[in-house]
Amino acid sequence: MSTLVTGIAELVTNDPTREGLLGLVPGAALVVEGDRVAWAGPEAEAPTADLRLDLGGRAVVPGFVDSHSHLVFAGDRGPEFAARMAGEPYAAGGIRSTVAATRAASDEALTAQVARLVAEMRRGGTTTVEIKSGYGLTARDEARSLAVARQFTDETTFLGAHVVPSGVSPEAYVAEVTGPMLDAAAPWARWIDAFCEEGAFDVDQAREVLTAGAAVGLRGRLHANQLTYGGGVQLACELGLVAVDHCTYLSDADVDALAASGTVATLLPGVEFSTRQPYPDARRLLAAGVRVALATDCNPGSSFTSSMPFCVALAVREMGMTPEEALYAATAGGAAALGRDDVGWLGVGSRADFAVLDAPSHLHLAYRPGVPLVSQTWVGGRPV
Amino acid sequence: MSTLVTGIAELVTNDPTREGLLGLVPGAALVVEGDRVAWAGPEAEAPTADLRLDLGGRAVVPGFVDSHSHLVFAGDRGPEFAARMAGEPYAAGGIRSTVAATRAASDEALTAQVARLVAEMRRGGTTTVEIKSGYGLTARDEARSLAVARQFTDETTFLGAHVVPSGVSPEAYVAEVTGPMLDAAAPWARWIDAFCEEGAFDVDQAREVLTAGAAVGLRGRLHANQLTYGGGVQLACELGLVAVDHCTYLSDADVDALAASGTVATLLPGVEFSTRQPYPDARRLLAAGVRVALATDCNPGSSFTSSMPFCVALAVREMGMTPEEALYAATAGGAAALGRDDVGWLGVGSRADFAVLDAPSHLHLAYRPGVPLVSQTWVGGRPV
Ligand SMILES: [Zn+2]
Ligand SMILES: [Zn+2]
Repeated sequence: MSTLVTGIAELVTNDPTREGLLGLVPGAALVVEGDRVAWAGPEAEAPTADLRLDLGGRAVVPGFVDSHSHLVFAGDRGPEFAARMAGEPYAAGGIRSTVAATRAASDEALTAQVARLVAEMRRGGTTTVEIKSGYGLTARDEARSLAVARQFTDETTFLGAHVVPSGVSPEAYVAEVTGPMLDAAAPWARWIDAFCEEGAFDVDQAREVLTAGAAVGLRGRLHANQLTYGGGVQLACELGLVAVDHCTYLSDADVDALAASGTVATLLPGVEFSTRQPYPDARRLLAAGVRVALATDCNPGSSFTSSMPFCVALAVREMGMTPEEALYAATAGGAAALGRDDVGWLGVGSRADFAVLDAPSHLHLAYRPGVPLVSQTWVGGRPV
Repeated sequence: MSTLVTGIAELVTNDPTREGLLGLVPGAALVVEGDRVAWAGPEAEAPTADLRLDLGGRAVVPGFVDSHSHLVFAGDRGPEFAARMAGEPYAAGGIRSTVAATRAASDEALTAQVARLVAEMRRGGTTTVEIKSGYGLTARDEARSLAVARQFTDETTFLGAHVVPSGVSPEAYVAEVTGPMLDAAAPWARWIDAFCEEGAFDVDQAREVLTAGAAVGLRGRLHANQLTYGGGVQLACELGLVAVDHCTYLSDADVDALAASGTVATLLPGVEFSTRQPYPDARRLLAAGVRVALATDCNPGSSFTSSMPFCVALAVREMGMTPEEALYAATAGGAAALGRDDVGWLGVGSRADFAVLDAPSHLHLAYRPGVPLVSQTWVGGRPV
């Protein structure tokens, strides 16, 4: 069964065979067949289909691809947030309070929490989400975190190397992560990740974790250069990772390495918003030819937003991106950061994953900050 | 008929007889009778009522009072926004393009636009909104703008002195505003306002406009000190206005005058977000004892957000306010800026205007930026 979707005031395709970064088609239509797009173009040229749906003059954009989130957790860190806004610095150690609450939570409670946040993301136009573990930090708790996440997405990431738990030496913990914890987690994960930062894991430890993951078939990604300069970004480039995330503190050599490697730099401006840190300089990366993605980093400590439109607005206000570049990074960029070619664009053969905006143009995502503009989200060919 | 509302994880009352700025009651209940609150307090002490509604453990806050908006307009300035983000400075003259589109629009089109934005505001928890004219700039167009606005709120403001239209001398235009335009507008307005800024109206012109309005019973408010230092804030204090809005560029003498006068300083951080200007320093004002309100300034040129939660989050991130101070300014502060004592708080005798948050605490308004947290809005004792 096919559906012709008409009344699209502006269609963002991200199709490189069309004009401009976003491959905009004004006055457009889409044909959806099964979970795929069967046709896209000007409404005047649209073929017929079994069903017809008129969107009444709204913009349609590819569904957001949120390539970085930490949704499997329990507990609330609102008071920690308030204390930080009153002047206390952000420290990675706060992660441990979430670890204690997550370990104590039932599978059912964790599943309900992820379901709630994924539903919230979908209402905000996100159609693909990556979800990390990292608040379990034991073989059992990392594996069950990933099993919970796997109910909602195939893009699951084992992040045992999130922080060293209290009372364990870093050396012993890395041995655990690369040994029994990896064995328990691997069946539920597609990716492996580490938090390479002062106070978390150093470059050698991160390399050890990523290498162990690769040996059992997990592709690598990395948290790096969030709070300080360091070797994480260059490690990611050296290992040919698909993506390296945060990239707030970058040397010229880091930028050169990113441009040369093709590794996607995933920027997470919700973190800088909620920790009052300086924003990464997207303009510098784009000028150097680096591929850039935007994601939420949705987590209870440093960025409890699930909103990709909010990240787009921040990227434009704070990081020197144009509205076009920011939307591209939040869709096609996220897809690149997950190594996906079926999402992040709209055209023949792509997944029929898209967001309908209560607005005539994608520009409104940045022009109307804080306003929930997504009126309908389609995932796999159906409104959800 | 009375309704007992239970399952309130945290009730923000803004009641000065309770503890703390927000007068928080954990585990609370409310009794709503007609359009008013008949009882508020701990659920364990709640009286019985005809009906009972359980909110299932959500926070309840007073409805937001958005004391500054410009909703009566036509046209789209998305491309102007994009150009500004690419480096063009914000200039008040952009108002004129909206004036042309507004004059050309039918009453029905303007009404539909305001209805759409007011509905969006209500979904975001706003229960009282002030709406200005200012995109008509003729007697006929200002009067019909206010008549359109009056269908949605009693808090309507005549802003003929928004900008001098093309082809008219400032002197002739002020004579028009204070003469025939005022006569046509006054029946539809409660307030009179002027944009006191370089490129708009100077202090003497603003004084003339406010004085003429006062003579026909309109209370004054003022746009001042948005883009430059100037005499607007001190004029507002001298005239004893209820509120002066923007207050981005303030001298020490301006701050002293505000503290001495009791005039509310209304801060509009959506403007600074969308024009990439420096934010006003709320901390400095609060430290001096100035009363502060937050509002959206929702308008198509400089701040096309309708979201009070977004303004709360910006106030915390960018203006040095605590989450408590920001929420208070967005509710009780807005009420003070409109001279209202029936809204902006929840307790016996207040209007039953409130927002139910899909969150356990009001902290989430700043802790979860960009996320639409308002799950239900009550206006005048009924969910809308
Ligand atoms: Zn992260
Ligand atoms: Zn204004």
